[in-house]
Amino acid sequence: MARVGARPENRHQARLLRLLRDSGPQSRAELGDAVELSKSKVAIEVERLAELGLVDVVGLAASRGGRRSQMVALARSLRFVGIDIGATSIDVAVLDGELNLLGQARAETDVRLGPGPVLEQVIDLVGKVRADHSGSITGVGVGVPGPVSQAEGALVAPPIMPGWSRFPIRDELGAALGAPVMVDNDVNVMALGELHAGTARSVRDLLFVKIGTGIGCGIVVGGEIYRGVNGSAGDIGHIQVDAHGHGPVCACGNTGCLEATFGGAALARDAEAAARAGRSDWLAGRLAAGKPLSADDVGQAAAAGDPVSIALIRDGGTRIGQVLASLVSFFNPGLVVIGGGVAGLGHPLLAEIRSVVYRRSLPLATGNLPIVLSELGGTAGVVGAGRLVSDSVLSTN
Amino acid sequence: MARVGARPENRHQARLLRLLRDSGPQSRAELGDAVELSKSKVAIEVERLAELGLVDVVGLAASRGGRRSQMVALARSLRFVGIDIGATSIDVAVLDGELNLLGQARAETDVRLGPGPVLEQVIDLVGKVRADHSGSITGVGVGVPGPVSQAEGALVAPPIMPGWSRFPIRDELGAALGAPVMVDNDVNVMALGELHAGTARSVRDLLFVKIGTGIGCGIVVGGEIYRGVNGSAGDIGHIQVDAHGHGPVCACGNTGCLEATFGGAALARDAEAAARAGRSDWLAGRLAAGKPLSADDVGQAAAAGDPVSIALIRDGGTRIGQVLASLVSFFNPGLVVIGGGVAGLGHPLLAEIRSVVYRRSLPLATGNLPIVLSELGGTAGVVGAGRLVSDSVLSTN
Repeated sequence: MARVGARPENRHQARLLRLLRDSGPQSRAELGDAVELSKSKVAIEVERLAELGLVDVVGLAASRGGRRSQMVALARSLRFVGIDIGATSIDVAVLDGELNLLGQARAETDVRLGPGPVLEQVIDLVGKVRADHSGSITGVGVGVPGPVSQAEGALVAPPIMPGWSRFPIRDELGAALGAPVMVDNDVNVMALGELHAGTARSVRDLLFVKIGTGIGCGIVVGGEIYRGVNGSAGDIGHIQVDAHGHGPVCACGNTGCLEATFGGAALARDAEAAARAGRSDWLAGRLAAGKPLSADDVGQAAAAGDPVSIALIRDGGTRIGQVLASLVSFFNPGLVVIGGGVAGLGHPLLAEIRSVVYRRSLPLATGNLPIVLSELGGTAGVVGAGRLVSDSVLSTN
Repeated sequence: MARVGARPENRHQARLLRLLRDSGPQSRAELGDAVELSKSKVAIEVERLAELGLVDVVGLAASRGGRRSQMVALARSLRFVGIDIGATSIDVAVLDGELNLLGQARAETDVRLGPGPVLEQVIDLVGKVRADHSGSITGVGVGVPGPVSQAEGALVAPPIMPGWSRFPIRDELGAALGAPVMVDNDVNVMALGELHAGTARSVRDLLFVKIGTGIGCGIVVGGEIYRGVNGSAGDIGHIQVDAHGHGPVCACGNTGCLEATFGGAALARDAEAAARAGRSDWLAGRLAAGKPLSADDVGQAAAAGDPVSIALIRDGGTRIGQVLASLVSFFNPGLVVIGGGVAGLGHPLLAEIRSVVYRRSLPLATGNLPIVLSELGGTAGVVGAGRLVSDSVLSTN
């Protein structure tokens, strides 16, 4: 059983723990090769980690010629909790040390209710998923849809979350759940999820573009999230896509912002306008059924051949593509992953984004650049939240 | 005297050397505090560095209460050479270990002559500046105006340098000068110069925008140049500034590229068009004097009140500002430095860039963001080239 609050005592131990988290059980010999430590040093560090309850010795490895080496794994008692708070939903998962999902739960919410009621819901959900998975919690990661101050463990002036600014999420959840908590914005957390379990596993410099109600970008430099000097790096929703300032007025007060022309909210607005103007029978039919139109409806309409919906998706892809083309020229990433709810529009959206980026970025930057849809879908957030806190708990500071 | 080819033997020594390079002579006690090593460990490492000829003990520091501590400095015999190859000029400087300028020389050239004649000129120039500064060369840094493969120490398909692609600059100069050579593109090298000796000294995440004949950007992440997966990061000259693809056709084949609408080449072209169309008496007068118009002429005309030239500078500032606004939202830097020849247009250009960036980027990203002109001017390139190679020579690999 992991001792409560046990932490690695030096950077060798921290490296060994992360290696076991990211690559699974390994023999002591393999661990020694990977961290470039002598046999005897690895033996000492592994023994100490076992005493701390952070690793288990799980048997003997196949022989490499000499004596068979011990197999080492992260302690089975490690339990991370990943929490993904969205504008209208909460996802909670219990993860083992390697960040495999052991259980999850989901509930509808409305972040505009404020931190009190929403965090109460979160704590209830954690209680439910934990019930089936005994043991203490090693760490809790939380993704939230707004700009986060890492120092405060709190949101700072989040546009869609009245009442949350500077509310001490980290400290409140830490006290309620009795474990260390790390908070970051949802896009960074999803990028970490991709890095741990998605297409991005082997890539060190990448962009993760989330197209949900709004639009944001997670930036990974050298395998780590890059946050910028104020933690606002990747905030691409308000990049101007129309140099002449045409287009709808954005919530930020400017015109021509990416987010005002595409994303879940903009798609729903444009779909409703098309339905009311009689330009799309399909969308008008769906609207007549009584529910407000959503990005999902546009996707279904496009799949059914509705030309207006296909055009909306193409136009959106063009806008995203224009912004991404600039960012690809600037950042020269090894991979671009498109995720978030609207990414569910799938291939027509991806095709348009690719077409614009490959045409508009420099050949040197796009030569071997894959642009792909996220394969993790809904789990990127909770896995990434687990990775966020495990990065912190499995380090020396 | 530094032993030829002497290198630090471990990362403590490497850290001590860089500290002495960046902050000047220090007492052993101060060094110990800065690198978090015990007195006895620092004494051992300093003694070894002195044996290698990499540091000098230069006397005793003022007392901090107990015994007076030895003052340590980088060896006076260290000599770095910084070389800045531009499209039409070569700058060479000899620098001491702290990258202070000991001597410099400049010559006109034309990179289109190809690597043979141009590198011969470079070697001649190095010979001239060295003549006054005896001793062997510790390392040579080179900035070149095109994309560089660090692995090859060579340019790769540089648009304005026919005959240079994959020519082994590093190996040729290394053989001729008998010292380790590092090559990088001119914008990265200038960004390093700013980091070492300019406004950027205390900043870890910053953008250096060079506006010369073309336009490029050096990206600094955590105090290091970020190059991207193919080394093309920061190549912002071909970002589209007109979403509708209007504007002049660029050398890259696209329309609406930043570099096709602003930069030295575009300014000269627009100035000549204005002169020929009779829209500016000032520029027409200068053109009649016989020499082709340049960005400098536009600057002088603007200073003299020529409205067409003022408008050209403002329009250019708007274009640069639009691109920078996106990059600032994306990257959230702590500082933006504007350098390169066209930055000599000075305040009117800077005022327009600032106005667009502060209006168009998110408040969180621009709150404390200084946007300044480079104070180093012509020396950023040679100092940065010295820093490039010293980073390599003063490390363990």
